[in-house]
Amino acid sequence: MPDTSRAHALELDARDPLAGLRKRFRLPAGVIYLDGNSLGALPDDVPGALDDVVRQQWGVGLIRSWNDADWWNAPTRVGAAIAPVIGAAPDQVVCGDSTSVQLFNTMIAALRMRPGRNVILTDPATFPTDAYLADSVARLCNAEVRRVPAAEAAAVLAADGADIALAAYNHVDYRTGELRDLAGITAAAHAAGALVLWDVCHTAGAVPIDADAHDLDFVVGCSYKYLSGGPGAPAFLYVARRLQQDFDPALTGWHGHAEPFAMESGYRPADGISRGRIGSPPLLNMLALEAALGVFAETDMAAVRAKSLALTDLFIACADELGLEVATPREHALRGSQVAVRHDAAHPIMAALIDRGVIGDVRPPDILRFGFNALYVSYADVVDAAAVLGDIVATGAHLDPKYAVRSTVT
Amino acid sequence: MPDTSRAHALELDARDPLAGLRKRFRLPAGVIYLDGNSLGALPDDVPGALDDVVRQQWGVGLIRSWNDADWWNAPTRVGAAIAPVIGAAPDQVVCGDSTSVQLFNTMIAALRMRPGRNVILTDPATFPTDAYLADSVARLCNAEVRRVPAAEAAAVLAADGADIALAAYNHVDYRTGELRDLAGITAAAHAAGALVLWDVCHTAGAVPIDADAHDLDFVVGCSYKYLSGGPGAPAFLYVARRLQQDFDPALTGWHGHAEPFAMESGYRPADGISRGRIGSPPLLNMLALEAALGVFAETDMAAVRAKSLALTDLFIACADELGLEVATPREHALRGSQVAVRHDAAHPIMAALIDRGVIGDVRPPDILRFGFNALYVSYADVVDAAAVLGDIVATGAHLDPKYAVRSTVT
Repeated sequence: MPDTSRAHALELDARDPLAGLRKRFRLPAGVIYLDGNSLGALPDDVPGALDDVVRQQWGVGLIRSWNDADWWNAPTRVGAAIAPVIGAAPDQVVCGDSTSVQLFNTMIAALRMRPGRNVILTDPATFPTDAYLADSVARLCNAEVRRVPAAEAAAVLAADGADIALAAYNHVDYRTGELRDLAGITAAAHAAGALVLWDVCHTAGAVPIDADAHDLDFVVGCSYKYLSGGPGAPAFLYVARRLQQDFDPALTGWHGHAEPFAMESGYRPADGISRGRIGSPPLLNMLALEAALGVFAETDMAAVRAKSLALTDLFIACADELGLEVATPREHALRGSQVAVRHDAAHPIMAALIDRGVIGDVRPPDILRFGFNALYVSYADVVDAAAVLGDIVATGAHLDPKYAVRSTVT
Repeated sequence: MPDTSRAHALELDARDPLAGLRKRFRLPAGVIYLDGNSLGALPDDVPGALDDVVRQQWGVGLIRSWNDADWWNAPTRVGAAIAPVIGAAPDQVVCGDSTSVQLFNTMIAALRMRPGRNVILTDPATFPTDAYLADSVARLCNAEVRRVPAAEAAAVLAADGADIALAAYNHVDYRTGELRDLAGITAAAHAAGALVLWDVCHTAGAVPIDADAHDLDFVVGCSYKYLSGGPGAPAFLYVARRLQQDFDPALTGWHGHAEPFAMESGYRPADGISRGRIGSPPLLNMLALEAALGVFAETDMAAVRAKSLALTDLFIACADELGLEVATPREHALRGSQVAVRHDAAHPIMAALIDRGVIGDVRPPDILRFGFNALYVSYADVVDAAAVLGDIVATGAHLDPKYAVRSTVT
């Protein structure tokens, strides 16, 4: 029987090797923040860094900052800072644009790298934008989207993989928090002659991805969740070095040109990961992200993962005690960094939680999501949040009509 | 003989109806900034607005700010603020992504709206990213790019327009500053049954565009030049209301879905301009832009245009006196808001100018560009900048070897 007492949680906090990192984030008073899987908390380094970017680099440096502040290389420089977080050696990650744009661009490039194959394999429960863009790419490229659950993907690749150009999966199910078999699907895809594209939006910064070790081909992720880059922080793209010279994307923007300032009339892609650049990057967002990434140099993903699993173990134990239905797998190997609780009253319960300072979110039809960023969530947060949740469910506080209105986003 | 004296310039400043707007920008001491056509100066409203976005909306509001600070509607709200600047009635402009992404997405949508036609007409001297993306779209959609100079476009459309789906032109030539015949090319395209896409990166905020009055179909522009939205500020897209229900873009990101939070497995585009949304917008950049746009509510584009023409008239007169070759047309109807000076030593001259606090930029092979943002450039700036330019050329100051090294960007 796990110890879910507050005293035990405080003990765990006292010996938590990552506890010192919490002060690197500005957490508002009176809030337990369990929605860092949707928008990470504000890193303490960001406001000052952004002040400098705005007032000095933009305000005083003006156009000169493209050189003097090295704005030009921000997409590859920030990409290089993301690389160790996803287990990538240098020169394989570029930062920019949105996840949607990166997925689209990369799926087209992947189809072009597998001529004679025309199937994109993806999960019927993939994140919506991944599904929409796979369909759009298929329409543009005369390809076909075959929807196979992640659990069956390796078998389908082995049995019927000859037409499959690309297996495009999420590292984690955004609703249940179930972690997919990244290594197994990748190996099966490669055995079938296909490429893989992993969407790691819900794991980058929380779960080791080991892109190089697993021989991944393409990885796309966002940076505003566990990387805490801020609202609308740009996405990133990993292209394995061995594939870069054949990477032939659709979005041939001038920043990806071999000599952008030669202003040539025809496109010649840059060597290496720079050809993943498209147009002018959103520098305020990108440089805020750069500041946010500093904290990752002070820890490693194994430590982050260990604490994340301990936090989610504890929350699952609390939910069990409350008699709630946990939709997230209990096996560590199948768990991301969130816990999903299934409840018919998910929306009003979350509204009541937020009203009491415990912030998570909901996903249709009946999932309460609680995300645990090990860099700033404490064990005490876990038991305190569970206590509030338990009180709401026990007292029926969520039945108050004021919680019946659904918000747009959370 | 125009009066290019400093005394006269000071008189012009004294009676300039826009002079009061200069204080709405933070211009560094010792700098005459004539590169607002590349990166606009820092608006005074931006740092405070961004402080609030970062420290309060992100730091304290956290995920709740998607609702409470109305982040969700930022792309259409900021689009609505841009609309009057380009002469568009509400609900036709959306903000987001880069110019490159918007051009790509819109060219594909345009081809889909003209089935049976497969030609994109564009200028051989178009801005590079426009050319690269037209070629990419043609490759994806089995279309053809026909390169016809803007001056001949109307005639080609009239004589041989049956296969042309889209005429995609820049409102201004980014090198010479020559303004294109937006009304004429648009009318000729429509007469031929084609659509038009105008890239207004180099005119939005400086030259009236009158999108509705000219019956434009699509307009794409960036917001970091004359709109002063900051480094990497997001682009915008205008889709005429009459075309929105048929607008069928390639980038079907989840933010453009009719019910994004229903998380449906198939894409159903939102009604209206919202279907131009793609993924999560870069909110720090976008909300900085929103603050930057406030100044446009205090003037109108006719006044901005009148001053811009007076500034460029004066600079051309100064350049004439210096015996320099002006590449920008003298006719007002053919001039944007920049003056291009042709000189074999363009690079070292610009380096010497910047060293003395006069900031413009260069474009290959031999163009010195000087951009005039009427909101913050004064007539005294014009004659002072010209005096420095004249001194450098007269004394050969630019021949100093330290000016021989070319910078990356400017």
